[in-house]
Amino acid sequence: MTSSADVTPELEDLYHGFERELLVPLWTEIGDLMPAHPRSRALPHVWRWQRLRELAARAGELVPVGRGGERRAIALANPGLGGRPFATPTLWAAIQYLMPGEDAPEHRHTQHAFRFVVAGEGVWTVVDGDPVAMRRGDFLPQAGWNWHAHHNATAEPMAWIDGLDIPFQYVTETQFFQQGRDKLSDAEHTTPDRSRSERLWGHPGLRPVGAGERPATAGSPLFAYRWEQTDRALADQLAIEAEGFGGTVEPGHAAVRFTDPASGADVLPTIRAEMHRITRGTQTAPVRETGSSVYAVFDGSGTVTVGRATWSVTRGDLFVVPSWEPFSARSEAGATDSDSGALDLFRFTDSPVFEALGLARAEGRA
Amino acid sequence: MTSSADVTPELEDLYHGFERELLVPLWTEIGDLMPAHPRSRALPHVWRWQRLRELAARAGELVPVGRGGERRAIALANPGLGGRPFATPTLWAAIQYLMPGEDAPEHRHTQHAFRFVVAGEGVWTVVDGDPVAMRRGDFLPQAGWNWHAHHNATAEPMAWIDGLDIPFQYVTETQFFQQGRDKLSDAEHTTPDRSRSERLWGHPGLRPVGAGERPATAGSPLFAYRWEQTDRALADQLAIEAEGFGGTVEPGHAAVRFTDPASGADVLPTIRAEMHRITRGTQTAPVRETGSSVYAVFDGSGTVTVGRATWSVTRGDLFVVPSWEPFSARSEAGATDSDSGALDLFRFTDSPVFEALGLARAEGRA
Amino acid sequence: MTSSADVTPELEDLYHGFERELLVPLWTEIGDLMPAHPRSRALPHVWRWQRLRELAARAGELVPVGRGGERRAIALANPGLGGRPFATPTLWAAIQYLMPGEDAPEHRHTQHAFRFVVAGEGVWTVVDGDPVAMRRGDFLPQAGWNWHAHHNATAEPMAWIDGLDIPFQYVTETQFFQQGRDKLSDAEHTTPDRSRSERLWGHPGLRPVGAGERPATAGSPLFAYRWEQTDRALADQLAIEAEGFGGTVEPGHAAVRFTDPASGADVLPTIRAEMHRITRGTQTAPVRETGSSVYAVFDGSGTVTVGRATWSVTRGDLFVVPSWEPFSARSEAGATDSDSGALDLFRFTDSPVFEALGLARAEGRA
Amino acid sequence: MTSSADVTPELEDLYHGFERELLVPLWTEIGDLMPAHPRSRALPHVWRWQRLRELAARAGELVPVGRGGERRAIALANPGLGGRPFATPTLWAAIQYLMPGEDAPEHRHTQHAFRFVVAGEGVWTVVDGDPVAMRRGDFLPQAGWNWHAHHNATAEPMAWIDGLDIPFQYVTETQFFQQGRDKLSDAEHTTPDRSRSERLWGHPGLRPVGAGERPATAGSPLFAYRWEQTDRALADQLAIEAEGFGGTVEPGHAAVRFTDPASGADVLPTIRAEMHRITRGTQTAPVRETGSSVYAVFDGSGTVTVGRATWSVTRGDLFVVPSWEPFSARSEAGATDSDSGALDLFRFTDSPVFEALGLARAEGRA
Repeated sequence: MTSSADVTPELEDLYHGFERELLVPLWTEIGDLMPAHPRSRALPHVWRWQRLRELAARAGELVPVGRGGERRAIALANPGLGGRPFATPTLWAAIQYLMPGEDAPEHRHTQHAFRFVVAGEGVWTVVDGDPVAMRRGDFLPQAGWNWHAHHNATAEPMAWIDGLDIPFQYVTETQFFQQGRDKLSDAEHTTPDRSRSERLWGHPGLRPVGAGERPATAGSPLFAYRWEQTDRALADQLAIEAEGFGGTVEPGHAAVRFTDPASGADVLPTIRAEMHRITRGTQTAPVRETGSSVYAVFDGSGTVTVGRATWSVTRGDLFVVPSWEPFSARSEAGATDSDSGALDLFRFTDSPVFEALGLARAEGRA
Repeated sequence: MTSSADVTPELEDLYHGFERELLVPLWTEIGDLMPAHPRSRALPHVWRWQRLRELAARAGELVPVGRGGERRAIALANPGLGGRPFATPTLWAAIQYLMPGEDAPEHRHTQHAFRFVVAGEGVWTVVDGDPVAMRRGDFLPQAGWNWHAHHNATAEPMAWIDGLDIPFQYVTETQFFQQGRDKLSDAEHTTPDRSRSERLWGHPGLRPVGAGERPATAGSPLFAYRWEQTDRALADQLAIEAEGFGGTVEPGHAAVRFTDPASGADVLPTIRAEMHRITRGTQTAPVRETGSSVYAVFDGSGTVTVGRATWSVTRGDLFVVPSWEPFSARSEAGATDSDSGALDLFRFTDSPVFEALGLARAEGRA
Repeated sequence: MTSSADVTPELEDLYHGFERELLVPLWTEIGDLMPAHPRSRALPHVWRWQRLRELAARAGELVPVGRGGERRAIALANPGLGGRPFATPTLWAAIQYLMPGEDAPEHRHTQHAFRFVVAGEGVWTVVDGDPVAMRRGDFLPQAGWNWHAHHNATAEPMAWIDGLDIPFQYVTETQFFQQGRDKLSDAEHTTPDRSRSERLWGHPGLRPVGAGERPATAGSPLFAYRWEQTDRALADQLAIEAEGFGGTVEPGHAAVRFTDPASGADVLPTIRAEMHRITRGTQTAPVRETGSSVYAVFDGSGTVTVGRATWSVTRGDLFVVPSWEPFSARSEAGATDSDSGALDLFRFTDSPVFEALGLARAEGRA
Repeated sequence: MTSSADVTPELEDLYHGFERELLVPLWTEIGDLMPAHPRSRALPHVWRWQRLRELAARAGELVPVGRGGERRAIALANPGLGGRPFATPTLWAAIQYLMPGEDAPEHRHTQHAFRFVVAGEGVWTVVDGDPVAMRRGDFLPQAGWNWHAHHNATAEPMAWIDGLDIPFQYVTETQFFQQGRDKLSDAEHTTPDRSRSERLWGHPGLRPVGAGERPATAGSPLFAYRWEQTDRALADQLAIEAEGFGGTVEPGHAAVRFTDPASGADVLPTIRAEMHRITRGTQTAPVRETGSSVYAVFDGSGTVTVGRATWSVTRGDLFVVPSWEPFSARSEAGATDSDSGALDLFRFTDSPVFEALGLARAEGRA
């Protein structure tokens, strides 16, 4: 019954019978299908921000944005996943680029999405008619089936990171898509400092009684999590730790999770997003989890280890942590660092899927 | 079988038999026990802040605070509830008063509680060793079974409103109580501007990854909801309405609910708390609900109608809305009003109990 | 601040001021309001089935059943609860009696209810037009706001036990009531052996796809839990224990809980119902819990201890266990016992209320 | 930006740059990645029971069952899925075969599984030490991470259908596996008629109080759903429909869902399982849903339509319905039918995954 078994003519006959009838025996596949623990087809890999930025800028010159292609987005293709635009088996990560004055047309899809801004500003994403500013450090969730478009109101191009669950919905075959209006209205081309969403849902612990009974779609009704808040929350955690009261993930390692204020749950039904701050000199304990992550270096420099791979990383670099590969990070001084000297890592992962289904496991950091 | 039935000697015998055996027939009680809709024993009533404040100040002179009595709290006793210190059949509302330099000793209880500050500042409530400042407009929840004490660090006395579910736990007989330490430590006598709780949990939509996995007790881990945030959220709602995008409860009537950031649910398992802002000249639509509410006028002046009762109310006044009594409010100019001219009403209610059990109903404001 | 404080004229003045303003200080009431643990106003008490049955039969002769009085139900009035028809502060327990050929008219109410049959048969309860037979040992839940009526199709009177959350809804003031039709249709006067509800929902682990998506009301869609099933489940548990595999609550003590097959939750939102079987000679470990219980002896004889009270009980006797009073039972041979010699105790309690609100506690039987 | 754009040398350069950097643009892939609705890679296909049975019997002669290969299971390989043993993108379906006296060794895995018996009997599956009989029509769920083995206690070989979420856990990379003991104990080789699981959990609406507080693993604690119950539930639904009270999915089409009695939820976290009965002459309304199904004909004959494919099917045939393909079935007289003349279809699907994540959609049968 094992692969080393002698293949007799009778057995060959049987296997040909299986093939003819579109059948495959378990006993020849079990090692691949039912391993002792996850062994990801995805590989640890790093993409460098500078190269991404250059190619995106070149695409800005050569490739118009508009209906049909919909978005000038360029996706990470994990070297273990056969050339498909999948950063991991479940997650999409891309750099998106919008030229001065450009609009990306309105559409909606069941895929859950977010934007994260590593650098620059000047684009507003318009969600269900509500223009939302995008600036460095901001996290902007975009739950499935909300209408959305983008417009660049400035004289500068802008790039940002898109994260979606495209691969998950692709392999499970659950995705729907609709085109919306080709042009935004004048009202939607306004450039307010704060969106209506933030004004309704952006006050800590306060739910709007009138608007809050029943969000129109799953996922967070808060369309922007501003860097000022995220930064302050991380600094607060480290200050509490310094006062001797814990509050961090581990010594020198603060982290916040972006959550839906209407439920306290993850910001999107299929995607968890977090910002981690690792103080200079801190080495995080190795952790491994079911499910995969994509990280973007938001600030600082350091060394990250994913399974057997180790890289020096700096602002804007993106890398993936496949399922069950141990991950740790070390913050180190770099040429371009901010004053704090900390390594700030943005992370997103498919954990909510596995927590909902009872399939989440983790090791390390007890 | 009806009350009009002739009471024969045989029937009298039967009823005496019931009495002897500790039995009561349904048919003589059904009108009281099973009415067509709730008819509250509680009465609509208003308590005036000035009188409360004077009596509390006098108690400050005459009655020490300390172990045994535990708190210098003076409770509203609804005139329909037989002299018991119950504002409504399920809710306790009291004015609490602390003199300069005084401490209220540490204890904990299963009763869920909050503080709401109508006027003044200077007291810190210490929750599980975390000193939390109290200032005008702040809402401070205190979920059951957290250790807590208070200290007045200033040279002025301070009064505030306490709300608890004491009557509910009293009638259902579920309450536990423990005394803690008689004295707070020096560290707990510090007077920080922001508590550790706020620094961990007070950032909109952001959950601390290290501290946030499992709150120690039910109820919100955020121990203070600051007036600046509440005020801004209400102003934002009215601005969005003025821009033509709704967002309010009804025209001219904004409201926020205080929620647990870890779950999006009500701030306490048995108590809902909200702040309502009614713009000058607005009359709210009458609403009635199962369960009872206590209101405190935080700012402005107006006229409120509860069932057949109507009162002019102003800052600090407290009144109750019994179960299923229609309630509406009208904002009017008053002598002591703030610039905005709005009527700001703080409200708490037992709704979460009835929503959890499928017993909540409401009428009005479709 | 304690009760032993000297009452000076100034203090007397203050207390008169409180009274005038409808205020009550905490410090004189705290011992009653915030005890170290629940101290129930309800008293342990036992009602004897024979006396209940006799008085109910006499009421059958003297008191007609019909619109207005609605039901010939006679309620247990706990001696600690001021003569009100409340078995405990939250629970109603009554004997209901229907004469040959009688109908109890249709109505509905938000109070959650059940019937439990200690003896006899011959009545059908008609729930939303579905006639459900009632026989010894059957448990019949009746979730709030379902229309229901009863008819006795036989030549014999029948008595059974009614349990409701009338006191809970009375003190929290959430109850609604509506009268239905005065007469049932011919179709509703049929006497089928199995109700439609049982045929749709009475198959273990099987949910009807067509009917099962959304039950019309909260609470179980299964309207009868038959004694044959309950008895077999208890016997199965004891057999598994005898084989050395546990499965019981404690040695010699089997128990099943009646649950909603659509959710696995308690059969009613405010009431838990269970059947316990204690084998001859077994003494259960003392247990105390927040919330109160009513027990009915279904079969066998024994001795039960509630707090400091101890009684011999036999078939049909009803007794109450107030909140936090320790309870244990001992099975003993009696004159009228069934062959098994076990003591079968039916129990209902308000636990779901406190579990929903995070207020449930228990001690004993670790 | 569309595929029809002229590919200039500059654009070619850009695309080579993408390739070098492991990047893929969205605009060339969007049609595949973000279709208007799911377009499954899986194809509708039918496998014939007779051929499956023959090949499995031949494998019984040639391939020993034992440690390493673990199970003599032969999986359906959907012709659209590249030769992998995946019936659909998320579901595994196999025929498993055990010779007289054989044991399949103990192991456990995170993959959720079930057995469904189309024909025969004689095997006991031993779940956590509890031997569970398998007979025609029985459904036996096997939630992830329970130890399990099989033994054939008879002189006849036996075949049955295995369903698992192997493909889902394979593509999402969440699977864990452990080998258990090579040999079962004598106690586990017993052949009881009813398992301990059934005796604890197989009584409708009754939860064991002692064993029921906290199931050891996710998924149903009831290890067998017996055909007698399923058959009776289907017959009951059709009888209620005949009496004029609905209860079926649609006229002539009854269905039950296998559920976890501890929660009322689907029997496994990632797999829904149902039995459908279509009366002779009935044609079901076409339905399409996100997610995929595998059907097995349990009894009767008929014609099924999946997208544009139509087949005549009879007992034991298996076929797949890919995501969003319309499905309907028609019951027709066949040579080998049971007396009832109905078409009984067993179905399993990945719906619970998509319902948990808010991605479930369906069309048809309003």
